[in-house]
Amino acid sequence: MTNLSYDAKMREAMQALTQWGAFLTTSADGAQNTMAIGWGSIGFAWGKPLFTVLVRNTRYTHELLEKATEFVVSIPLTDHMQKELDYCGTQSGRDKDKFRTSNLKTAPGQKVSVPIIAGCQLHYECRILTSLPISLDELHESCHQWYADDYHILYVGEILACYEIA
Amino acid sequence: MTNLSYDAKMREAMQALTQWGAFLTTSADGAQNTMAIGWGSIGFAWGKPLFTVLVRNTRYTHELLEKATEFVVSIPLTDHMQKELDYCGTQSGRDKDKFRTSNLKTAPGQKVSVPIIAGCQLHYECRILTSLPISLDELHESCHQWYADDYHILYVGEILACYEIA
Repeated sequence: MTNLSYDAKMREAMQALTQWGAFLTTSADGAQNTMAIGWGSIGFAWGKPLFTVLVRNTRYTHELLEKATEFVVSIPLTDHMQKELDYCGTQSGRDKDKFRTSNLKTAPGQKVSVPIIAGCQLHYECRILTSLPISLDELHESCHQWYADDYHILYVGEILACYEIA
Repeated sequence: MTNLSYDAKMREAMQALTQWGAFLTTSADGAQNTMAIGWGSIGFAWGKPLFTVLVRNTRYTHELLEKATEFVVSIPLTDHMQKELDYCGTQSGRDKDKFRTSNLKTAPGQKVSVPIIAGCQLHYECRILTSLPISLDELHESCHQWYADDYHILYVGEILACYEIA
């Protein structure tokens, strides 16, 4: 395991995220879940490095994040986990425990109680600083095609640990 | 001028932003202003590359951004514009036209009507997609030290052009 500054692999992270996706894992009240994400931002504010994710209000992950204090973004730096990402992107944690019904394996987080997804090279362990619901009324019309009756919530996480596992 | 993908220099951008700062320029109703920023995020959502900036509600730039549709982030990749950044970080565009009272020079934007700051190497021309006010009630206590009676608004911009000027 190699500890990294939050920005060391930010370009690789964004490229992987937008090309094949990443896992967003969280837990609350004894339940845990992971979902596939393809959007996100990396930055800095309040003297802290940040990873911001977007989650639809209809997702089980949203239900967990509303009670959670932490999340982890685990990013495969090649497309070798496409099958697992597809599975997590099409199944809901409401109906099944994805960790029991797939080959997904977890490992303990270093700084958070949320696990990382094994097999991914890059991990961002985050503490939730705030959540910001997107209002469609306030969103540029070029983004409206992404919504039916739902909307996204931005979860802004402080990156507590960033590391690579070869 | 070299056109870049939004992520090509994101690490350099974040390092410059957090080490010595960058210029956030906007215009509305015939007025234009630039301010120094040290925070921000770069990412991707809605099929678009994003640059997110934070502006306090007390700033003149906030007044302009509430009416504006575009902004530009101009980033010096070395600290050669420290004096200009200090000036923009301590003076308000409410009291003076910073472009008349300093050595700051502008050049036309490529895709937006907001100018870039000459002398900076890296430029992100953005269209505002949404603005998200930070509620202190919903913000982790570790961030409260940054506020008195004010708060930040996140402006999420679609990066329409990203380029480097040698």
